[in-house]
Amino acid sequence: MSTATTVTSIPERLLLGSGPSPVPQRILDALATPTIGHLDPAFGALMDEVAAGLRAVFRTSNRVAIPISGTGSGGMDAMVVNFVRPGDRVVCGVHGLFGERMADALHRQGADVVRVEAPWGRAIPTESLVDAIAAGPTAAAFVVHGETSTGVAQPLDGIADACREQGALFLVDCVTSLSGHPLDLDAAGVDAAFSGTQKCLNVPPGLAPFTAGERALERVDGSSRSWYFDLSLVLGYWRDSESGGDGSAAPPRSYHHTAPINMVYALREGLALVSEEGLEARWARHATAHEALRRALAVLGLERLASADEALCPLLAVRPPQDIDEAAIRGALLRDHGIEISGGLGPLAGKLWRIGVMGVGATPEPQERLVGALATLLGRDADAALRELADGWSS
Amino acid sequence: MSTATTVTSIPERLLLGSGPSPVPQRILDALATPTIGHLDPAFGALMDEVAAGLRAVFRTSNRVAIPISGTGSGGMDAMVVNFVRPGDRVVCGVHGLFGERMADALHRQGADVVRVEAPWGRAIPTESLVDAIAAGPTAAAFVVHGETSTGVAQPLDGIADACREQGALFLVDCVTSLSGHPLDLDAAGVDAAFSGTQKCLNVPPGLAPFTAGERALERVDGSSRSWYFDLSLVLGYWRDSESGGDGSAAPPRSYHHTAPINMVYALREGLALVSEEGLEARWARHATAHEALRRALAVLGLERLASADEALCPLLAVRPPQDIDEAAIRGALLRDHGIEISGGLGPLAGKLWRIGVMGVGATPEPQERLVGALATLLGRDADAALRELADGWSS
Repeated sequence: MSTATTVTSIPERLLLGSGPSPVPQRILDALATPTIGHLDPAFGALMDEVAAGLRAVFRTSNRVAIPISGTGSGGMDAMVVNFVRPGDRVVCGVHGLFGERMADALHRQGADVVRVEAPWGRAIPTESLVDAIAAGPTAAAFVVHGETSTGVAQPLDGIADACREQGALFLVDCVTSLSGHPLDLDAAGVDAAFSGTQKCLNVPPGLAPFTAGERALERVDGSSRSWYFDLSLVLGYWRDSESGGDGSAAPPRSYHHTAPINMVYALREGLALVSEEGLEARWARHATAHEALRRALAVLGLERLASADEALCPLLAVRPPQDIDEAAIRGALLRDHGIEISGGLGPLAGKLWRIGVMGVGATPEPQERLVGALATLLGRDADAALRELADGWSS
Repeated sequence: MSTATTVTSIPERLLLGSGPSPVPQRILDALATPTIGHLDPAFGALMDEVAAGLRAVFRTSNRVAIPISGTGSGGMDAMVVNFVRPGDRVVCGVHGLFGERMADALHRQGADVVRVEAPWGRAIPTESLVDAIAAGPTAAAFVVHGETSTGVAQPLDGIADACREQGALFLVDCVTSLSGHPLDLDAAGVDAAFSGTQKCLNVPPGLAPFTAGERALERVDGSSRSWYFDLSLVLGYWRDSESGGDGSAAPPRSYHHTAPINMVYALREGLALVSEEGLEARWARHATAHEALRRALAVLGLERLASADEALCPLLAVRPPQDIDEAAIRGALLRDHGIEISGGLGPLAGKLWRIGVMGVGATPEPQERLVGALATLLGRDADAALRELADGWSS
């Protein structure tokens, strides 16, 4: 029998990779609030607050706005098992790893998956998606709004109408974009979407913000192959209280599984931070931070993969110099400077640095640390890059 | 669009219900350790520690001992989608809610479910399970070791041999029993088991400790219907590092989903607390705590549902007096005394109080608070009950 014999210390890190993002002390403090019960009336009131906060950040009036009790990928599984049936024709946009994994999840569900592709690093032309949706009876169309593997934002406009004509649901992955890139689910006609807590919300990983409108919920009939993610059961617990928020007069919620109480505390705090800043101001700050960092990194010779009109604000993916060992530089950045950035995935492994511009990471100070450290490791002029960063923030 | 307008304060609670259990400050502090990346070498080393700690508490030498990124019920789904195939004959013990929900999950997976039942409040006779397993080609047999809905411990002896003869896997739910009731998975011949963090480990809810041996892992072939829970993908990330624990020389783990970093910190701390106390000493303490509380509650007229030889140490389920409004008493206990206990589920709704005897809740001080408060609310003699409690602890 093994026993734990080592005690790993947790180093200090500046998280500027693809996520998790830096977690503010206020959110860590919320996370450590003493646990209460999942059927406690006080927790019910908190659930109502979280639902309201999620509606605001998703820009939706959907009744259902909840955290799924898993990471962002759990939100993907929840979407698939609730809204897609075996044999369904589903149009799936694939222009990076996260579209690929959705196609995989849809195959596992038994869907007839129609892939609509674009090269990794480009958005998918809307007309390609629309044509695929119009080509036959379609149950759903799925796109990744913020492709974390490439730093590309997929336009959502024009897809919902094509879906409506086919009676198809419009499903979206907004894991990396939520609260860091302009997104209005109701305006875009999105029927259901999932996200993750560990990107622009700056909450530790572990929950998947999730929303679904009535067109999507009509597909929920209790026959989901997953017991854990079946919304017909989950929503018995996560339904709105009828008391308007204070929980006192609410009917008892029905037990499904034990909610991840402390993670919900942290999510509530993360949503409060968004509310205090204002969602549009937050989007604008992420755009400024992205552009300032892009300019500074360009001075260091690092060019962005995405084109200007397709760039995803919260994730800046740049090509490392071809004459260096990119993994060694990333390793030194982590080891010697305590800064995490992410490498490329799939066909872009070894060819990309993915830098997070997420929440409190989308501010001048952490970007200065990154630019200074990268300049040192690359043997470039830090001052020029830092001046460009400052210019970017002041323009 | 809604915005969050209320800020719910989190009340202080003594959690003596069916879980979550009280979380020690040391675990809350661990939870709030600043987040690092899921691919950070330091996190890899921590994952090795967690695996070793899980092996110790499960009493297994299984290579695979990991936290599934969901609550205990997520662990159930993970077990089903990885080890059961559509059409499989699966024997499922049902003697409470958690056996019922496993039967439901197996049906959803397309299994041919053979229910072996006992009344809620009793264990299932081993010979009934053995006979059902022997009755035909069987892919798996499942039992709930600690039935949280009734406070009954299911004996595990004698089942593994019947399984081996049929080539069946022996699958176990040990959500409530893990570290609070004698359990030795390898000695019992269990092939795979899942648990939850929020019971005897005193960690907040959100992870499902999970283990599987080689006989079970042979069934994993990448065809799981769930992308999120597919062990063929999950284990690429959670594999042992080859460095013996310090992570430095380990190959990079392959990314699947972003691990719930902070919850893993908390689990590591919870496992460390078990290691410091010693697993057998912990079992003995839970047995003492259960018996002391049972005697004290008997003085108040509250009789245990389970028989003495079938009682589950971490969950004491007692019948409330028939002449009271049990929900009102539980409500007053929560509201006026800050103490949570749980009511009955399913056919036992309104007929049972389920009291947690879990981890730091299985100590004299919280039990004194509960006994004193219950005596007050029931109009009984607190002193006599408290004397019995003290006697129980000193005998």
